[in-house]
Order: sequence, then C-alpha cells, then structure tokens
Amino acid sequence: MAATAPQPAANNPLALRRPEQPDTLVKVSDSVVFGAGDVVLMGGPCAVESLAQILETARAVQAGGGKMLRGGAWKPRTSPYAFQGLKEEGLELLAAARRETGLPVVTEVLDPRDVETVSAVADMLQIGSRSIQNFPLLKEVGRSGKPVLLKRGMMTTVEEWLSSAEYILCEGNDQVVLCERGIRTFETSLRNTLDVGAVAVLKERTHLPVVVDPSHAAGDSR
Amino acid sequence: MAATAPQPAANNPLALRRPEQPDTLVKVSDSVVFGAGDVVLMGGPCAVESLAQILETARAVQAGGGKMLRGGAWKPRTSPYAFQGLKEEGLELLAAARRETGLPVVTEVLDPRDVETVSAVADMLQIGSRSIQNFPLLKEVGRSGKPVLLKRGMMTTVEEWLSSAEYILCEGNDQVVLCERGIRTFETSLRNTLDVGAVAVLKERTHLPVVVDPSHAAGDSR
Amino acid sequence: MAATAPQPAANNPLALRRPEQPDTLVKVSDSVVFGAGDVVLMGGPCAVESLAQILETARAVQAGGGKMLRGGAWKPRTSPYAFQGLKEEGLELLAAARRETGLPVVTEVLDPRDVETVSAVADMLQIGSRSIQNFPLLKEVGRSGKPVLLKRGMMTTVEEWLSSAEYILCEGNDQVVLCERGIRTFETSLRNTLDVGAVAVLKERTHLPVVVDPSHAAGDSR
Amino acid sequence: MAATAPQPAANNPLALRRPEQPDTLVKVSDSVVFGAGDVVLMGGPCAVESLAQILETARAVQAGGGKMLRGGAWKPRTSPYAFQGLKEEGLELLAAARRETGLPVVTEVLDPRDVETVSAVADMLQIGSRSIQNFPLLKEVGRSGKPVLLKRGMMTTVEEWLSSAEYILCEGNDQVVLCERGIRTFETSLRNTLDVGAVAVLKERTHLPVVVDPSHAAGDSR
Repeated sequence: MAATAPQPAANNPLALRRPEQPDTLVKVSDSVVFGAGDVVLMGGPCAVESLAQILETARAVQAGGGKMLRGGAWKPRTSPYAFQGLKEEGLELLAAARRETGLPVVTEVLDPRDVETVSAVADMLQIGSRSIQNFPLLKEVGRSGKPVLLKRGMMTTVEEWLSSAEYILCEGNDQVVLCERGIRTFETSLRNTLDVGAVAVLKERTHLPVVVDPSHAAGDSR
Repeated sequence: MAATAPQPAANNPLALRRPEQPDTLVKVSDSVVFGAGDVVLMGGPCAVESLAQILETARAVQAGGGKMLRGGAWKPRTSPYAFQGLKEEGLELLAAARRETGLPVVTEVLDPRDVETVSAVADMLQIGSRSIQNFPLLKEVGRSGKPVLLKRGMMTTVEEWLSSAEYILCEGNDQVVLCERGIRTFETSLRNTLDVGAVAVLKERTHLPVVVDPSHAAGDSR
Repeated sequence: MAATAPQPAANNPLALRRPEQPDTLVKVSDSVVFGAGDVVLMGGPCAVESLAQILETARAVQAGGGKMLRGGAWKPRTSPYAFQGLKEEGLELLAAARRETGLPVVTEVLDPRDVETVSAVADMLQIGSRSIQNFPLLKEVGRSGKPVLLKRGMMTTVEEWLSSAEYILCEGNDQVVLCERGIRTFETSLRNTLDVGAVAVLKERTHLPVVVDPSHAAGDSR
Repeated sequence: MAATAPQPAANNPLALRRPEQPDTLVKVSDSVVFGAGDVVLMGGPCAVESLAQILETARAVQAGGGKMLRGGAWKPRTSPYAFQGLKEEGLELLAAARRETGLPVVTEVLDPRDVETVSAVADMLQIGSRSIQNFPLLKEVGRSGKPVLLKRGMMTTVEEWLSSAEYILCEGNDQVVLCERGIRTFETSLRNTLDVGAVAVLKERTHLPVVVDPSHAAGDSR
C-alpha cells in the first residue's frame, strides 16, 4: 500500500493555552467544578451490577469525601465473552444512586449511537482509553454539549491527546477534563505506567483541567 | 476510582487454531483469495482524492501485479482540521476504478453507522489501527458478513488482536484477514516498528490469514 | 545462533524484603542516612567543570536544604566526542567542595578499574543508568563496601533492577539505595517517563531505600 | 539533582556513510568476510559448557553451512546466582573446537580487563546487548584491533547504536559488524521484537556490515 504521508504536527488552537489564558472551569453541577483549584474526588465500581451494589458504593464514595460517582453501564471488554455492562438498566441504577446521595454521575459512552441516551441521564460523559481516537464518537460527545471526561489512551502521546480534545472543542463544547490513567510500556510489575510528567506538561500546554485515575496504574498485573 | 479487576487471559475459541485445523480462506472475489498460499498484493493511495487520481493509481497497481485496490474514503485523522476524506463520493470513485480495472476494493469504515453504506460498495471492509478496540464497530462489521481486513493497533498485543478478531467471528463472520502494520516503540528512526515476529506467532496460533502493510513501518518520521 | 534459554524468574533473596524485615538504613555520614524516614535532598551539576563552578553549586545546594552534593567526574556520553569529564581532577574538586561545605559527595564510577580511585574520595558511588547491567562493575562496587546509589536503566524492569542490586548485596555490601530516574517509552514530550508506580512496588518488595531523580524525567526533549 | 542538558544529536563521522562510500568489509579470516554480499551464517551454544558439547555443536554448525562458531565463555546474567560461564577454560574449549573444525570463533567480552585475554584466543569479539553503552569496554575493544560484533541493546536507538560503533571506530578500529537482535517493547508474545526496519535504515546510513541474530526475537517468553 502507498505510504501515508506523515501528518504535520497537530495544531490545536482551541486546546492549547493562549498567552495569559486562565484555566477553563468545567462545571458538572453547582458543587462539582473542575479547574477551580480543589481536587474533585470521584469513585465507584468498574461496572454497575445491581441496585444494592451501586447504592452501597455511592454511599461509601460520599462517606469518603467523594464528590462524584462513576460506574460503567457500557463496558468495553477485550473479550466479547466478558460482561458487557447492564446498558440502559445500568443508567437507571446510576440515576437511582444519584437520587439517593445527590452525587452527580459520570459514565462511559462507547458508541456514537448511544450518546443521546447516555446524555439524557449522565452528568458527565466518559470517553474511555480505547476510544481516544474514535473520532465519530468524539464529534458526537462534542455536539452533546455535556461535560466530557477524556481518558488518555494506552498508546497516546500528549500531542495526540490534545488533538482528540480538539475534536470535542471544535464542535463548540469546551467542557473537557483530561484524565491521565497510565500508559503501556515494557514494565509489567503494574498494569500501566502512570505518567505523572504528562500532568505537568498538560498544565503548561492547555487550559483544560487535568485529573488522574490511579486505578489501572496501581493495579497488579499478576 | 475503584480498580478494574484485571481481565482473565482472553479465550478466543473461534480465532485460535484448533489441532489440525486448516487455514481459513478469505474470499473477496473469484481471483482474490487470502490464505491459499499466494501473496495478495494490494495497493492504492492513502486517501481517494479525485477520479483522475484513483484511476491512474488503480492502473498502476494493476500494472505492478496488484490484485486489489485500497483507498480511503473516510480518513481517521489525528487532527480535526486535516482532510477527513471524500466519504460517499470517495466510495463512488472507488467503484468507478473497479469498473475500469476489475480490481476489487478495500476501504476503511470508521463509524458503525456507516457500515451499511460502505458495505454496499466495498468488496472488503478495513478496520484501521485506531479502531482495533472499537467494539461496536467490530460487531457491526461482523454482522455485515463482508470480508474484513483487521489492522493491528499501534499498541495492541497479539492476544488483544485475536480478541478483536473474535468479536467479528462470534457474529458469524469468519472472513477476517489480520494485517500487521507496525507497532509503536521507543525507536523513532522509522514511523513504526514492523513486528515480523508477530506474523510467525499468528501463523501458529490462528487459522486466519495474515498480511503485512509495510507502508507505515517503512515511512520516515523526519 | 542457538536460542538462549529464557532465564528463570530472578530470585533475589538478599534484595527482597523478608516478612517483617525492617527498612535497611544506608548511612553515608552521621547526618546523611537513607531509609530513616526523612527525604535526603541531593543536588549538583551534571559534570564537575571547575573549582568555581562546583563551589558555587555546592553552596547553592546547601542553601537550598540539600544534604549531599553530586557531580560527575567521569561522564558516560552517547558520543565519544562529547566531554567525558575531568576524571581524577574532578574528584579533587568534589573533595574541595566537601571541605568547604561539609556536604558528602556522590559521583559516578563507570569502569571497574576506577572503583578503587573513586572510592578513595567519594562518600557514595553512583552506578549510572547505562551501567545497570554492567555486572563486573556491580561486583567491584559491591566489594568496595561503599554506599551505592543504583540508578535504574532506561529499560530495566523492577525485577531486573533488584537482580542488579543483588549483585552488589551478595558481595557483602548491603548499603544500596535504588534511584528511579525515568524509563524510556513511546512518549517524547519529556525526556523520560518517571515511573512513580515503581517506587510503590519497590517499597513493598525490598527493604532497600528508594530515591527519585526527577531531572531527566522533567527535562524537555525539544 | 540538576537537569542534565540534552546531548546534541550525535555526530558520528566515522560510522555514517559518506556519499558514494562503499560498504566496509570486515575480515575475520580468509573465508569469513562480512559485507561482501554473502550471508555469513554463525551458530553455537549460548554458553560453552564442555569439550564434548562444543565439539558436537561446532560440527553441527559446520554441517549446516555455518562459517563461524559462537559460544559464551563469560556470560552476562541477570541474576548473580546463574551460571556465569567457564571463562578462561571456555576460551580454551572454543580454541579446541576451532582446531577441530577450522571455524573461526566469536565470543563475548564483558569486562575491559578481559579484552587482552579474550583477544588472544577469539577471532572476533562480541559486545553483548547489555554492554552497548559500556564505553570503557568499547574503547578497549577499539584498541584491540580485533573484529567486533556489536549487538544492539534492548533499548538502543539506531542513532545511539551508531554512536557506540563510533567509540570503537575512533580508536582506529573499523572492523565493526552491527548485529540486530530485537528490542524491548510492550509486546510479550516473543522475548523481543526483531526490528527488521532498522536493518534497512542502517544499510542506508552506515557503511558497516549488518547481521541479524533471530534467537532472542524468536524465543518464547512463556
């Protein structure tokens, strides 16, 4: 096949910080604002499994100082035979946990056809690491106007990550939070290598808020 | 966030080679069959740009011994400001080149909502490296029944790659060709590192045909 | 060539923490002890260049709260044409800075033939990242009985790193401090990727003190 | 510690191919010449273990068309408790196998203090992957005037590799063969990832011969 010409260095005018541009605030609710200086603690299960499970977890998150509940209703699984999530039912359980605790919820959307459904319930849409260059999906979440938690892919450079954010921003949605969650390297003593240096690089290059999800990077690959 | 439990080693009963299972043949046309022993040479431009361009290229591919034409109508671009492809018009140009030369065409589909449209024209659907874990898309191309060219992601292990193939196979579509195209490593003297060893590993582990796209791995990153 | 049989998982009885084994203290001087709970701040130039330079730097390190001076007398350089260090003269300048400030000095030794010379002056021997599997050198610094600062290689797994420490320990020298300094990954926005997760893994697996050198991992690769 | 200034892009005037410079021939014996167009097949055990073993192997190498015998007398082992080689006795066994078969021998030297001893017996000195940036050793093998087989490190870029060759060349020894043996990447289905692209890059950039050692890259990491 013919060689694809290398793409020029990405130019991301909306994602990059202009001189003296202040930090962007991403407002999920009156009490949950990213970029305002306070760390926003989020917690919750990998997958929503039952009402009892999500209620118990939500209360534990709240008791531990968490301001936001996360939980997966659609799960991107390496294997087609793994549990793929409760889908619409999972959304309803998240909504129930929100009613019970008042915590806003963030949940992953995988498919551009589901953005409307998920947006109707979730307070924030999560783009998972495997979707970091799923451009049709990025455009749809951009159009949704919802706050977006954009997780870095396992193989994504900082520059590519900002270009993926640009896909959302250029749809008119500037409510994007970048989430460092570890990259794939040769080291296997942990599941992923948390790239703390990238957080510092991002704080300089972009006005968007940055959060860290240590769960994969602290996980044991045994 | 709570740690995601490590997923168990993927079990891919349909993708893995059973004892004495012969190679699967993937038949795109009477004259283009993958897995039958002959190398199937494919060529074409990164993106379809005009009728003149695709006709000229298709004739050159044919003159050079190529049996199949590839060209992008939908292009996954790192930057939202890069050319995103001619889309439906690109499909029509590919069809015109096929009428002119008789070469079957393979082209990438990015969005599960486009699978039906692309399937109506293309002889084979390409899943690009950025879509290797786009599971809704994999399911749709599985359901399409079309032959699929499944490119490895830049940071996909062989095991994950076979699990992505399994997503297609378990929809009842066994017409999957695996395409090694180079992985992302620390080395930057070329755009990607072609993993020839993976080809040997795949020939042992799976019954599916394997092809190599050297274009990225031979590209100059300067 | 015949395949080298994969080596069995390294067994490092001296480096691994036995049940309830306390942290090992590495004592460089009465006031500089690693592993006792306080962070030991070290600073200094990449290479020792002149008396004025090393004295000025040493005073700045001390004024900034540093407890130890580092500086290279022998420099491992990628290119043979780059400055290779002042060697013996550099050692004398480090000794002069120590007399002036009272700060103990750590400096790199590259060659097993230089261990005796460097040990006669330095308070602690540094094994640089390129020497992490220079086994003749590890044995010599083990025999020297001197405290050792063992920097991780750019592509060394935690397990290999502990095996390199074991080379020193099994010569009867348990005064080894492990120094995380960043690993080589696909990401190039910084010179190296600081692996903070490895620090946590090490604290669990070994009784040896761990320090972090952020200088490479914070460096700009532009 | 203070940040090390990034080193300028290596300039390797002796290793890089000047315009129209022909390939360098590395002559190990009258019948073993690298760079002359023929593939020089080498074989032998990982470690020399006994006279019977090395004689039997040498005859098998010769019967299989091999022109050169390799075998380790000094072995760089990740663990200090693994077999470290027969050392001087191993050299004598290699010499015995050479007398028996006429095959020239290549063997690894690990320590600059052993270069003279190994050079007295071996026809070619091997620098192993762990020693690729052991600069004192590179200088010594440069001074020895012996042909050198310079294996790439697991983490070495092409540019760094050529700089390591430059260390040998600038001692007046241009008899250097570069040996690609696989790099360390995220992929673990094989022990290392053979970088065939690097061979093509090297053929363009340097006049030195290039060989490939597939043994590690074909090894099973299970």
